[in-house]
Amino acid sequence: MSTSGSTIAAGSAGTVETRFLDLPAPVPLDCGRSLHPVRVAYETYGTLSPARDNVILVCHALSGDAHAAGYSAAPSAEASTRDGFGADDRDGSAGKALGWWDGMIGPGKAFDTDRFFVVSTNLLGGCRGTTGPSSVDQATGKPYGTDFPVITVADMVRVERAFLDELGIARLAAVAGGSLGGMQALEWAVSYPDQVDAAVVIASTHALGPQGVAWNAIARDAIMRDPAWQGGHYYGTGSAPSDGMGIARMVGHITYLSAPALDDKFGRRLQFADDIRYTLTEPEYEVESYLRYQAASFVKRFDANTYLYTSRALTYFDLARSYGSGSLERALDRVAARALLIAFSSDWLYPPSASTEIADALRTLGKPVELQVIDAPYGHDCFLLEEARQTPIIRRFLEEPS
Amino acid sequence: MSTSGSTIAAGSAGTVETRFLDLPAPVPLDCGRSLHPVRVAYETYGTLSPARDNVILVCHALSGDAHAAGYSAAPSAEASTRDGFGADDRDGSAGKALGWWDGMIGPGKAFDTDRFFVVSTNLLGGCRGTTGPSSVDQATGKPYGTDFPVITVADMVRVERAFLDELGIARLAAVAGGSLGGMQALEWAVSYPDQVDAAVVIASTHALGPQGVAWNAIARDAIMRDPAWQGGHYYGTGSAPSDGMGIARMVGHITYLSAPALDDKFGRRLQFADDIRYTLTEPEYEVESYLRYQAASFVKRFDANTYLYTSRALTYFDLARSYGSGSLERALDRVAARALLIAFSSDWLYPPSASTEIADALRTLGKPVELQVIDAPYGHDCFLLEEARQTPIIRRFLEEPS
Repeated sequence: MSTSGSTIAAGSAGTVETRFLDLPAPVPLDCGRSLHPVRVAYETYGTLSPARDNVILVCHALSGDAHAAGYSAAPSAEASTRDGFGADDRDGSAGKALGWWDGMIGPGKAFDTDRFFVVSTNLLGGCRGTTGPSSVDQATGKPYGTDFPVITVADMVRVERAFLDELGIARLAAVAGGSLGGMQALEWAVSYPDQVDAAVVIASTHALGPQGVAWNAIARDAIMRDPAWQGGHYYGTGSAPSDGMGIARMVGHITYLSAPALDDKFGRRLQFADDIRYTLTEPEYEVESYLRYQAASFVKRFDANTYLYTSRALTYFDLARSYGSGSLERALDRVAARALLIAFSSDWLYPPSASTEIADALRTLGKPVELQVIDAPYGHDCFLLEEARQTPIIRRFLEEPS
Repeated sequence: MSTSGSTIAAGSAGTVETRFLDLPAPVPLDCGRSLHPVRVAYETYGTLSPARDNVILVCHALSGDAHAAGYSAAPSAEASTRDGFGADDRDGSAGKALGWWDGMIGPGKAFDTDRFFVVSTNLLGGCRGTTGPSSVDQATGKPYGTDFPVITVADMVRVERAFLDELGIARLAAVAGGSLGGMQALEWAVSYPDQVDAAVVIASTHALGPQGVAWNAIARDAIMRDPAWQGGHYYGTGSAPSDGMGIARMVGHITYLSAPALDDKFGRRLQFADDIRYTLTEPEYEVESYLRYQAASFVKRFDANTYLYTSRALTYFDLARSYGSGSLERALDRVAARALLIAFSSDWLYPPSASTEIADALRTLGKPVELQVIDAPYGHDCFLLEEARQTPIIRRFLEEPS
């Protein structure tokens, strides 16, 4: 909606502003509780067609936000980093000038804003404008902390559905996302089959395997074992579980990248000259220093409780359990949307096998599905980094008639 | 040495006692400092030949100790667990009845005590009897804590050399170990080439790759960020960095196992019945519960500073940097021992590629080397679990004339 073209590079969604919308009714949650009020932070790119039939909802991953594309109207002092391993910086993009999926959303891009009206929201439980554990609980006048209900991916999607209702949008031409964003896209296709024409599910899964469950449990435990977490009620205490969050982020980082990518980028290069300094406490290797830097920058921009809730939600996500009595095929039986699945050969956190399982189930059911496994070295981060190779695949898929 | 056969199963090294020996002279260290006194905890199995030419030194991994085989003379109340994923319990085996490599050491086993005199020591920096950061610094009358010098694998081997001198053992028929133990075996072959006839290097490497460096850095950071660590001077304070150590152990555990092994063992099975309970703080999945159990049992038996020092040493280990000006081939040029390298297909922490690099370098140099990559699913833990398949390989290798 808000686009200005004067000083903006070709292909950019332009300068965008994050907006906020309060849902009119309480949102019922899977856990049995309901949540009210719920505010949603969102951005839009492109123009809504008169028939309201050109809407693409973009869903973000664990540490993302509503600022998916274009330049932020309120840029921070920090510069955007889009080179090399900058995925982390864009993934969250808090206050950063450039949106976390800017390479994918804009005029002529994969999600082409010359044709589509692209909507991006901060997810339920978030810390970037949408109601989450750091929001004020109107019942107490204080931030929820861990009194916030434990939420699921289905709850996130329920909020997105209610939010789009307020915008007067009944149908989605497509719903798209990577990682946890891809889980939301799948959930949309299953929960609202008659309202989604196409789903673009990237580097995602129908259910995380036990290794992924374990990484998430370790990250959450690192936060919860930090005494500064204070049972989740650290807001206003002057401290926050930054040490634990830092560890969680480091674990995340290494699981987002592949071993060969780390070999290429860092090898065993030392920080200082070509010799070790015999230190326990200081980083010696470049990769050690890199991890500490990423941890320190992440804790400045992200809320630890949001990390916990979001990590728990993506761990719980399990289409077969929720909708198929254990059968993925049964769960997907209600899907009506065309599906595009993209996976990356080096992604060991959300391995291609999960996408293959989804594709196989859809094919068995006779439903339209396209699976593309891109041979690329950057691990799970590929969904943020390999924009150029995803673009023609997504453009072609979106051009096909429904 | 101490073997009794009455109630011991066939093939057992018998009941063994951990002994202690104080080195007579200060040990010079790579960092430039020297250490005195140094006590070494050790066990022996089998009988030393009159010619003293049948000695095998067995080196342990990060969380191990001198009790490698047989039943402990002072068994703890805890039962030994040798089934399935019991590697962790044996790896450290603190007070456990059965040694951590009992399946490999004993009459008729891989390291056959009917033929060889097998010696196992707790490594320098350890917390199971050998001098380490929890030992009393005679200069202050208090435990070293982080005043303990930062040590290297070469320092560990230097202590082992000085220890064997005291036993009157000049040569080794073989030196053997897995993981960090394999690094020690490699270091022996490079540092004391004329004193080692054969080296058995299992699931190890000449230098950890950046992903392994990163996992170790994360584990150390988890410990050091725990306020109970107190800069390393927690002894006698009534608290210890158990929370951080627990996280370190969880990270270790997942890296020791393969994703398929976790799939097989846990899948996505829930702890309670077949539904989720919407909890942030409690384990929901079996793998989450397993991790917490492993963390809790590890912190009871292992010292956090020993973890830090040992992790730093194995990260520093880099034969090419230390001995070859960056060239592995140059570093291995001095090796005279026959080498047996064993790697495991599913080990992604110490992948077979590292063993292949060593084998290639030795072959190029025209030195005798055998590389065996065992196709097994348990990841790095295979070196503790796949005893049956390693046994014939090692027995045959040790039977060859030098």
